[in-house]
Amino acid sequence: MGATTTEESLGTQIEEALRQRFAERRAAAAPYGREFVGLWEAAEAHALGGKLIRPRLLMELVQALAPEPLSTEETRCAVDVAAHVELLHFSFLLHDDVIDGDLIRRRGPNLIGALAARRPGEPVEPALHWARSSAILLGDLLLSSAVLGFARADIGPEARERLLALLEQTIFETVAGEHADVALSDGIIAPDLRTILSTSADKTSTYSFVLPLRAAAVLAGSSPATEERLTSIGRHLGLAYQLQDDLLSVFGDPDEHGKDAFSDLREGKETAIIAYARMTSQWEAIDLHFGRADLSTTEGAETRDRLRDCGAESFVRGLVQEHLDTVSAMLVDAESDGSLPAAAGQTIRALACRVESRVR
Amino acid sequence: MGATTTEESLGTQIEEALRQRFAERRAAAAPYGREFVGLWEAAEAHALGGKLIRPRLLMELVQALAPEPLSTEETRCAVDVAAHVELLHFSFLLHDDVIDGDLIRRRGPNLIGALAARRPGEPVEPALHWARSSAILLGDLLLSSAVLGFARADIGPEARERLLALLEQTIFETVAGEHADVALSDGIIAPDLRTILSTSADKTSTYSFVLPLRAAAVLAGSSPATEERLTSIGRHLGLAYQLQDDLLSVFGDPDEHGKDAFSDLREGKETAIIAYARMTSQWEAIDLHFGRADLSTTEGAETRDRLRDCGAESFVRGLVQEHLDTVSAMLVDAESDGSLPAAAGQTIRALACRVESRVR
Repeated sequence: MGATTTEESLGTQIEEALRQRFAERRAAAAPYGREFVGLWEAAEAHALGGKLIRPRLLMELVQALAPEPLSTEETRCAVDVAAHVELLHFSFLLHDDVIDGDLIRRRGPNLIGALAARRPGEPVEPALHWARSSAILLGDLLLSSAVLGFARADIGPEARERLLALLEQTIFETVAGEHADVALSDGIIAPDLRTILSTSADKTSTYSFVLPLRAAAVLAGSSPATEERLTSIGRHLGLAYQLQDDLLSVFGDPDEHGKDAFSDLREGKETAIIAYARMTSQWEAIDLHFGRADLSTTEGAETRDRLRDCGAESFVRGLVQEHLDTVSAMLVDAESDGSLPAAAGQTIRALACRVESRVR
Repeated sequence: MGATTTEESLGTQIEEALRQRFAERRAAAAPYGREFVGLWEAAEAHALGGKLIRPRLLMELVQALAPEPLSTEETRCAVDVAAHVELLHFSFLLHDDVIDGDLIRRRGPNLIGALAARRPGEPVEPALHWARSSAILLGDLLLSSAVLGFARADIGPEARERLLALLEQTIFETVAGEHADVALSDGIIAPDLRTILSTSADKTSTYSFVLPLRAAAVLAGSSPATEERLTSIGRHLGLAYQLQDDLLSVFGDPDEHGKDAFSDLREGKETAIIAYARMTSQWEAIDLHFGRADLSTTEGAETRDRLRDCGAESFVRGLVQEHLDTVSAMLVDAESDGSLPAAAGQTIRALACRVESRVR
């Protein structure tokens, strides 16, 4: 893989590409006034500093799939597409936070919280309106930038159309998932387990796992058969990841997962854990506390224990294992029929391990 | 221009292209559940039936600019780009309505109002949250569709990059304008006349006038010089149009402009009329009623009369005339130096006339 493509240098290259893009936009914003420049400054501060999971995955896999080491131009093109995957992620987060009314992410203020906090002397409502409207608008800019970035990828017309079709499908499915998620939380559709699992796959797995894997396949010139394998693998990996996330929020150590303890319970988030618990005799007692904004730590701990006792925890841990086992089996098949090179299998196995080890 | 490209047939072709796109999306939505299909049905109902001003302008101008009559393929490509300009417009309207909290457009329920009304038995807040979230998400889908539509235009790579750069600039400037508009209405920046005029040009003229004119130039293979002329012309035309709209809302006949009488005054909309009035001795009396949601028809009529007496009406009518005069002078220049063919001049003059005649 050569010294220029080590993991650390990958992260640096992606971050550099993002920084450059934000710097360009900030400069372009200047003629439109101080507030618009300020929006771009806030955008840069909040978009950077993350773990860049999605663009890193894309880069690692494109290197693993490519029949030969990437040329400088090919690396640059892949880094560029990877950076736009991150912009897409950030645009989804922004609109998600507007829809959910969230002001916090990873225990700090999110972009909306930060923009509202810049207007300390003002009444809360106008400051929040300003911050939320800004987040809607910034999300629009980043979403369109992501699509433009894919459209301008420096690859042949056929590969570009493959990338665009992939992105179109990804955005459509992610938004469909988010729409169903809102329907769940507004009580418009019933929170049964099947709906919750497909919603979560659509909303999160598609753009966080399937998109980076498939985009890597297109950039590496892999066959449609490889792309198809990666679609199924990405969906299972993404579901395992999301279910782990749900488990961590209820049963994990807040210092590890970075969210407030029991925030999912407080928000009344419809997860697989809750869907299972609803079918048990413990539900009545759990429901007393579920979705209560004023849930105390003691009540949270009690509810957590009930979710454990009723079998919801082990049921969901079982689901995680099932999805990871499916990924393993798919990798064996794909390697044996030649649709995935060994290096790609290794990259995906390492990712599956990281997902699995979040349990403990 | 031949029988197949008459104005009526143009409208039909654009509508047909839009209908087809919505039908595809509705079909693609089916696997994601009834609510998501319902969102696309609502989208189609609200996006169609408009006057298609922007795509029609694009089509008329591309025909007028093209050195030879368009081939069937060229017409199809232009209709397709034009349809995506309309989708962009609708996506901006949706997010605008979310930001402004509007439930009404042209005296009927807008998409948000219609979605909320589908849940009659429910408490207002969850129904509104659902409707607004749906509008944010649909806007995202249409915005990305518009960019994808431009990216897939069936033209050479150079022309496509011109189109993409134009679209990128358009979205950036429109969002900057909308951001400034929110800053004005939330009292974050001062409502002086200059800010109001540039905000309105950025927010409305850019995508409603400059985009169709310039996109037509790219599709017709016109020179960058022609495109530059059309940029200035579009900006002046757009400003004239917006100022007329402001005049109509206060001084016009509600049956003609289709909005509620005095709705701009009730909403406290910062227009050029208001910016002028603020500088006069009548402002104190006007300010008593400005931005009052409970403004009565009598108070509205009184305020309107004060806005007339203080000189704001004739000042803004003068501005409209100035912008239209500038357009006329620019057309003469562009025709004489050969950067615009006579047919294109005619199309734009006809449009300027339509803008002008809205006064009376």
